[in-house]
Amino acid sequence: MLLSGGLDSTTTLAIAKDFGFSPYALSFDYGQRHKIELECAKRVVLDMNVAEHVIAEINLRVFGGSALTGDIDVPKQQNFDEMIKGIPVTYVPARNTVFLSFALAWAEALEAANIFIGINALDYSGYPDCRPEYIKAYQQMANLATKASVEGGLQIKIHTPLIQLSKAEIILKGLGLGVNYALTSSCYDPGDDGRPCGQCDSCQLRAKGFLEAGVIDPLLSKFRIKEP
Amino acid sequence: MLLSGGLDSTTTLAIAKDFGFSPYALSFDYGQRHKIELECAKRVVLDMNVAEHVIAEINLRVFGGSALTGDIDVPKQQNFDEMIKGIPVTYVPARNTVFLSFALAWAEALEAANIFIGINALDYSGYPDCRPEYIKAYQQMANLATKASVEGGLQIKIHTPLIQLSKAEIILKGLGLGVNYALTSSCYDPGDDGRPCGQCDSCQLRAKGFLEAGVIDPLLSKFRIKEP
Repeated sequence: MLLSGGLDSTTTLAIAKDFGFSPYALSFDYGQRHKIELECAKRVVLDMNVAEHVIAEINLRVFGGSALTGDIDVPKQQNFDEMIKGIPVTYVPARNTVFLSFALAWAEALEAANIFIGINALDYSGYPDCRPEYIKAYQQMANLATKASVEGGLQIKIHTPLIQLSKAEIILKGLGLGVNYALTSSCYDPGDDGRPCGQCDSCQLRAKGFLEAGVIDPLLSKFRIKEP
Repeated sequence: MLLSGGLDSTTTLAIAKDFGFSPYALSFDYGQRHKIELECAKRVVLDMNVAEHVIAEINLRVFGGSALTGDIDVPKQQNFDEMIKGIPVTYVPARNTVFLSFALAWAEALEAANIFIGINALDYSGYPDCRPEYIKAYQQMANLATKASVEGGLQIKIHTPLIQLSKAEIILKGLGLGVNYALTSSCYDPGDDGRPCGQCDSCQLRAKGFLEAGVIDPLLSKFRIKEP
């Protein structure tokens, strides 16, 4: 399973465990601005227990093209309604395709058939590689890519348990499964200590989710930030 | 375009140039046993001229599962007919999927629509991710993965100009386009100086190709190896 250390992937980990899987967690050091999420991923893994955690180093900065890996500034706004529609500059070219391909490589080496990814089509930020039709096409490709597809074996299944949930539903689901959201990080442009900026798209989506869920984000109390 | 520094990808580079493209070449340092191929890729790029050459570092050794990245020995045999049928232990789990995903990321950042890969379905060594149906599925997925697929823009096209050619046809095509095969390396288990072992699957396929093409492999004279 892909584990960024954010709210969505941490909830996905809890769901996979609840399904009875023994997850292998894969994180990426890909030259992201918000590298602090890797520390979150490590804390999540310690808290929730996985079979193995690998942090793969890949350099997506060589290709450029994104505010998350390049020199473009992360856009900020005062409230959710100001979020720019369409694909934001934080989109990293083909990121989920690269991530899923590493997950597929590891799954094949482990002889595992189930890949979990915490993407979300409702509250997603306009990323093309978060849509159900993309995942369906990826799964079809994956089932032609592997040894098993020639020798007749396990069919690869890409699980996206969050894909039709709102951020509020994801949070309530995770809380029900005992997720400690104080361990997670969502901000695209956090301080060195992990303090969320509160103004990027990802912070806005998180705040809206907790607001709609009627729950206080434990990350706010951790950093003694006033509720929005 | 994906450039390993081997015979097939070097021929593919020549074909892409012949089509009128100005290629961006992408190689991978992925923990392969035959790292010498990266030196070949650099020499090929110097000889043939490309817009840019990037060597991306990715560590596929963390996943294991292959003789090319792990501790399993590369199988050797005295002649072509002894080659084991089926998928060999040199298969690297999901390798072409990982490679194509990086190519897709770079293509998207460059706003390029054409990706070249020198895979081959006839003389290929039994790898699932060298089949035409795999490439077709990859292209479908790619066209749902990118910004352009949402905003309406360039359609990604995966070019596989060698897919239906025999090794002999590839060699004759390349020679016609002026490829210097002495710069390339095909061996899975070469000496430190790049001397081919002559007995791995890849050396056997290359030798068979030159034999059927009726041409002497310039790599043999370079290393003063007697023709097979």
